[in-house]
Amino acid sequence: MTTMTAYQDLMAFQRETEALAEIAGRLGWDQETMMPRCSADQRAEETAAISHVLHQRRIDPRVEDWLGQIEDDALEPEAQAQMRLIRRDFNRTRKIPPKLATEIARVTSRAQGQWAEARANEDVAAFLPVLEQVVQLRQEEGHALAEGGDAYDALLNDYEPEAKAAEIDAMFAAMRPRLVALRTAALDRPAPAPVKGDFPADVQLALARDVAVAFGYDLDCGRIDLAVHPFSSGSGRDVRITTRTNADDPFNCIYSTIHEVGHASYEQGIDPAYLLTPLGEGVSIGVHESQSRIYENQLGRSRAFTGWLFERMTERFGDLGLDGPDAFYAAANRLHNGYIRTEADEVQYNLHVMLRFDLERALISGDLKVTDLEAAWNDRFAADFGFAVDKPSNGCLQDVHWSVGLFGYFPTYSLGNVYAGCLYEALRKAVPDLDDHLARGHLTPATAWLREHVQRHGGRYTPRDLIAQASGAQPGPEPLLSYLEEKFGALYGF
Amino acid sequence: MTTMTAYQDLMAFQRETEALAEIAGRLGWDQETMMPRCSADQRAEETAAISHVLHQRRIDPRVEDWLGQIEDDALEPEAQAQMRLIRRDFNRTRKIPPKLATEIARVTSRAQGQWAEARANEDVAAFLPVLEQVVQLRQEEGHALAEGGDAYDALLNDYEPEAKAAEIDAMFAAMRPRLVALRTAALDRPAPAPVKGDFPADVQLALARDVAVAFGYDLDCGRIDLAVHPFSSGSGRDVRITTRTNADDPFNCIYSTIHEVGHASYEQGIDPAYLLTPLGEGVSIGVHESQSRIYENQLGRSRAFTGWLFERMTERFGDLGLDGPDAFYAAANRLHNGYIRTEADEVQYNLHVMLRFDLERALISGDLKVTDLEAAWNDRFAADFGFAVDKPSNGCLQDVHWSVGLFGYFPTYSLGNVYAGCLYEALRKAVPDLDDHLARGHLTPATAWLREHVQRHGGRYTPRDLIAQASGAQPGPEPLLSYLEEKFGALYGF
Repeated sequence: MTTMTAYQDLMAFQRETEALAEIAGRLGWDQETMMPRCSADQRAEETAAISHVLHQRRIDPRVEDWLGQIEDDALEPEAQAQMRLIRRDFNRTRKIPPKLATEIARVTSRAQGQWAEARANEDVAAFLPVLEQVVQLRQEEGHALAEGGDAYDALLNDYEPEAKAAEIDAMFAAMRPRLVALRTAALDRPAPAPVKGDFPADVQLALARDVAVAFGYDLDCGRIDLAVHPFSSGSGRDVRITTRTNADDPFNCIYSTIHEVGHASYEQGIDPAYLLTPLGEGVSIGVHESQSRIYENQLGRSRAFTGWLFERMTERFGDLGLDGPDAFYAAANRLHNGYIRTEADEVQYNLHVMLRFDLERALISGDLKVTDLEAAWNDRFAADFGFAVDKPSNGCLQDVHWSVGLFGYFPTYSLGNVYAGCLYEALRKAVPDLDDHLARGHLTPATAWLREHVQRHGGRYTPRDLIAQASGAQPGPEPLLSYLEEKFGALYGF
Repeated sequence: MTTMTAYQDLMAFQRETEALAEIAGRLGWDQETMMPRCSADQRAEETAAISHVLHQRRIDPRVEDWLGQIEDDALEPEAQAQMRLIRRDFNRTRKIPPKLATEIARVTSRAQGQWAEARANEDVAAFLPVLEQVVQLRQEEGHALAEGGDAYDALLNDYEPEAKAAEIDAMFAAMRPRLVALRTAALDRPAPAPVKGDFPADVQLALARDVAVAFGYDLDCGRIDLAVHPFSSGSGRDVRITTRTNADDPFNCIYSTIHEVGHASYEQGIDPAYLLTPLGEGVSIGVHESQSRIYENQLGRSRAFTGWLFERMTERFGDLGLDGPDAFYAAANRLHNGYIRTEADEVQYNLHVMLRFDLERALISGDLKVTDLEAAWNDRFAADFGFAVDKPSNGCLQDVHWSVGLFGYFPTYSLGNVYAGCLYEALRKAVPDLDDHLARGHLTPATAWLREHVQRHGGRYTPRDLIAQASGAQPGPEPLLSYLEEKFGALYGF
């Protein structure tokens, strides 16, 4: 009885907190899409105010009282799953001294501006003092969270609960040589021709809209707007995405949109019974990325789907300067040398991630000093990519993550690719005629399978259990590697 | 020292509250402009959550502590003005039993839906039971607020602080016969021809944008979007307006826009030092309406400005079917019979308001039963407008206000017109060559004068003091009446 009353009170409180968090998220969306040019200072105060309200709710003494009164064993399994997430967040908050939390917020807010300036000036040295502060603060936070365990794991678990850096390390070690070999083999061959033509922004957006709907994005519970960086925002029945256009490269808009549709479909697909509860959002960044990646790459860049896309693009843009759908498929999967992670192809993307993972672990453990970061980055880049970094904005200053304190986030990108590989293998077995559907722009069988096996569960299971249940095996890199080797071996003829 | 510390703590708390209120306002804007079709239920929970947070802050026990420690006399005048508004809101909240507040929220939320259904079905009887509940609750609230004084005054003061219904009543009594005489005289004459032509929505919006900028609306701190009902939302450096288009009537879009620009310019024009404080928003609904009305009518529908507008509209839409700028001026100021307040012209609008003011006062005092409302409405309408109401949606069911409990709001519309009349008289004296500027679409002298004498002060002075200082005389209806009689006498030739 006490358990049930306390549980209901806690969940009512939690529901209101989740609703406020949705509002904060919508405010972020507004900032990137709608906010007038000169409103930034006022908006900063508004954002600080709602962040403060959310923080006060996290440390509200009533939460501790309720938690003390609830015996989780007396609850139904779904309620137990809710409690697992609530207790996890509560314990996290409890472990961090308020002074440290304030200091992290203060320093990272300053560091982001200094990073942007250093990047613009190609001046690594200017960024290092504040980066050192950020690293120290996150080390301190990691140790506080880990309580004697591994500090990096503790940071990682903010994004990927229950993941272990040592396991990721072993997995990456197995993947890296095969990916390096694959990129080397492919880049040794003649490069496929790119698409050419005239790609008006409004036509790109109209096509992106069609493609989003084809992939199952529900525009009645979402919307598509332009923003500098594509993102997905919100959960439940209000999940919005953004995209962008590039006059020279229509694939940028189309595949950014499909990627964000993957994130958004996950949020739209969660069991409505979980709305505005801890279970009502994607379970981890890695699983989130598995959805965006399988939509974008395994499905969206498949030979079958690109056949349909080739026709749609030809209808809308006229001649693409390519000799039929096979050439279009090659163009959509073109490997290319490049410095920038966010522009990398399906094969090399993971090499970018591994580089960052190794360096950030070394920074957090203290094995790497920030003063040695640039050299370490450039050495590793040359080793994996076969050419030298030409300037810091193409090297260790390219990503915002470290400046805002995101240590432990990078590996989730590749975890997402690994999960996507596992899910895709299982999906192909479950839907043997998948390619026939994709060739008609018919994504429903694929998205229905993902919704049933992944999306609807929200935070109900741990990431690893979720992927294992869905794919019928413990997650590992082999499906992804086999898929990549087969696909690019066939494309490049080796 | 205690006063200063308590004042600073209170103001810091208040600033955060104001920031949260801005967020709540932005959420309302989003709902009317951007929200996906199927997000309404989720949004209702989000709105309830932030409303609850705002309510908790209003009754936060720390506020009472701070108020007890602050000796207002020890503060600077501006700080005293802040305290006046904070104490007013605190006292208001303190006087209302929480149960009554909850009941009002519950009943009005239900009543709005029932009103919409009753209006759609032309079924007054279906609306009366819930209207009776709303009236009773607001009577109860009015008595709680008035503490022995006049209950209607107490409700009125939520929108127009320090106004007295008896004074408004006397003023309206002086205005009503002259307005009835004016409408009768004008409608006896031949009606001016309306504009005719092809008015594409995108061209209307482009023109509305130009006009908004001409009137001084700062698009760097705002934006214009489409919505079903035009409104202005936000304060400080993020003040957004909405408009709408009507394919047959381009004046709808243009004058709705100018009206909302008046509201928005007021909020944009408040002293930035007041941002996110109680002084940082328009002082009353009446003064707000004075800004929207003077922009829309005295300035926007002047012979001088319509000359400029005629040229702009001819450029954009081609021939308007009118014989030059005088005919255009007449078309923009056309009096017409009509049932609907929101579609009424400058003369008759106030008669609509007076009707509602008298009826709602009688409802709150108990002199009028809701069962007699329809007959009372129809009798009064026939007396003032000279023809009979044909159906309830054109009569007592036309406005949403009473269903959501807005008793005391209607008279502020006409107070705004009265204030606009006072301000316009003073403005013409201060800027003798105003018409030369208006004829060139040059609004700066007018908006600069309004900014200096009204807008920048925000909530610094009481509404009456503000208008008196700006216009150099106690506010009264004579300037408005003289202006209307002169303008429409000349237009209609009597």
